[in-house]
Amino acid sequence: MTRNSRLIVSDSTLTHRIKIKVRFSEVDSMRVVWHGVYVKYFEDGREAFGREFGGLNYDTIESDGYYIPIVKLELDYKIPLKCGDTAIVETKFINSRAAKILFEYVIYRESDMAVAATGRSMQVFTHADTGELELNTPQFFTDWKKRWNIK
Amino acid sequence: MTRNSRLIVSDSTLTHRIKIKVRFSEVDSMRVVWHGVYVKYFEDGREAFGREFGGLNYDTIESDGYYIPIVKLELDYKIPLKCGDTAIVETKFINSRAAKILFEYVIYRESDMAVAATGRSMQVFTHADTGELELNTPQFFTDWKKRWNIK
Amino acid sequence: MTRNSRLIVSDSTLTHRIKIKVRFSEVDSMRVVWHGVYVKYFEDGREAFGREFGGLNYDTIESDGYYIPIVKLELDYKIPLKCGDTAIVETKFINSRAAKILFEYVIYRESDMAVAATGRSMQVFTHADTGELELNTPQFFTDWKKRWNIK
Amino acid sequence: MTRNSRLIVSDSTLTHRIKIKVRFSEVDSMRVVWHGVYVKYFEDGREAFGREFGGLNYDTIESDGYYIPIVKLELDYKIPLKCGDTAIVETKFINSRAAKILFEYVIYRESDMAVAATGRSMQVFTHADTGELELNTPQFFTDWKKRWNIK
Repeated sequence: MTRNSRLIVSDSTLTHRIKIKVRFSEVDSMRVVWHGVYVKYFEDGREAFGREFGGLNYDTIESDGYYIPIVKLELDYKIPLKCGDTAIVETKFINSRAAKILFEYVIYRESDMAVAATGRSMQVFTHADTGELELNTPQFFTDWKKRWNIK
Repeated sequence: MTRNSRLIVSDSTLTHRIKIKVRFSEVDSMRVVWHGVYVKYFEDGREAFGREFGGLNYDTIESDGYYIPIVKLELDYKIPLKCGDTAIVETKFINSRAAKILFEYVIYRESDMAVAATGRSMQVFTHADTGELELNTPQFFTDWKKRWNIK
Repeated sequence: MTRNSRLIVSDSTLTHRIKIKVRFSEVDSMRVVWHGVYVKYFEDGREAFGREFGGLNYDTIESDGYYIPIVKLELDYKIPLKCGDTAIVETKFINSRAAKILFEYVIYRESDMAVAATGRSMQVFTHADTGELELNTPQFFTDWKKRWNIK
Repeated sequence: MTRNSRLIVSDSTLTHRIKIKVRFSEVDSMRVVWHGVYVKYFEDGREAFGREFGGLNYDTIESDGYYIPIVKLELDYKIPLKCGDTAIVETKFINSRAAKILFEYVIYRESDMAVAATGRSMQVFTHADTGELELNTPQFFTDWKKRWNIK
């Protein structure tokens, strides 16, 4: 990998975007997307990120013997999304030296790219068999970072 | 078991009732409980039935090596439930000679016991390890029926 | 409209297909899409149909003064969908002389086009202001049918 | 109100607890309650709080001409809840001089009262008709605080 591409994919800027069409069943009685639905949108963004930058999905990580449960989640709501709207979910990998996976999210309303919500999530590694927390960064995650030139 | 109790718990009338308070997040933009939510209410009723008449839950059945997936579901909607309403879910076991589990459901609005919805479900037995359909009634289910005097 | 196109869009065969990527949050502890999720998939299909053949959505119908609540729903489950699968939802308009909207659904697993589930829904017309049932076919629906050459 | 009861219901300690039985449909493929479900649990706690300390529900507030959308939400996950568990949701009102409604939440696993999750939410006041943000504390909220001796 050349120095240039290293600059492009720098430490903390692996980013992926997906589109999500708001579903009728996601809208509450105030006619806006119910605030809990954004947790799904973040997860959709995170899973799509994991597929795009191969090997960071629930499924593939489980085959390495780990679960990656969410331990912290923050959501900030800016403007409501409505039925008929399309959301753009931007998921950004945040590097950390700790044995954690951090993401930041921005949800845009596609029609005018206004920011509808932002958020952050923290995941840890637990052993799929025992459920115990792993305090050291698992090898597969170190390898994954190296592959994407994240230090 | 005496003859009397046999009359009380007759072949097809094992019935159980639970109360469910409607959640805000279950109400749609027309201000009534979204129709898909009733699938959860039925499941809540069915699971409570399984606990009441011990041994007919997903968990306990899985420990016998079986899954009991839903293969057919029917819902009839009579009157809408609203935020603030309490639903009574009545779950009734329907006996069958086939290797199937059948339930009927009635959802009442507690305030006036008006029928809000009715429904039916059919479950089959699959082997938890292979996923294959079991065409004969598993022993645990025959035992369960005998225990409750269902022929 | 020529005779040919009339044949293509015949009485009961207005059909629309959409793709839905299964979400992690839609999968249950048996690692398959939870059976209640298909109600959302049907609704997604129905709403996409309504947009495709303009004017049969919750929103547009409400602006005509009507709600179109689901009064009957049937689901048949054939094979389970899993996380990572993509579903194709086919929604087909079924003509009726009654003041009802009928749809049939087929959900395919995209990878091999195996039928994962089928279903049917019935909707009626109620007045958005009073909640009362409308027993006659509203003018906008008659117009909609005429526009698509459905008799 | 006597001095004693004032001490009991002091400025920031209006607290309410509810029980929630974990539903099968809330459990994900890792066999624990899916992390997004806690947003519902918080809302259930908040709505029950609003009913207990009358007049702080979506419905009643709307009749005063306001919506109270969530603008910020934080969740910390400690131990997973499983199917069959019962959750105790503790909702605590946090006083603020700003035109905001703040709550803190603790979710306990009933069997051993271990803390399963904690969280915080912030709501603002918007005008139900225009959607505009209200920067001053509405009269009904000032009245509500006075009624519960919150300064």
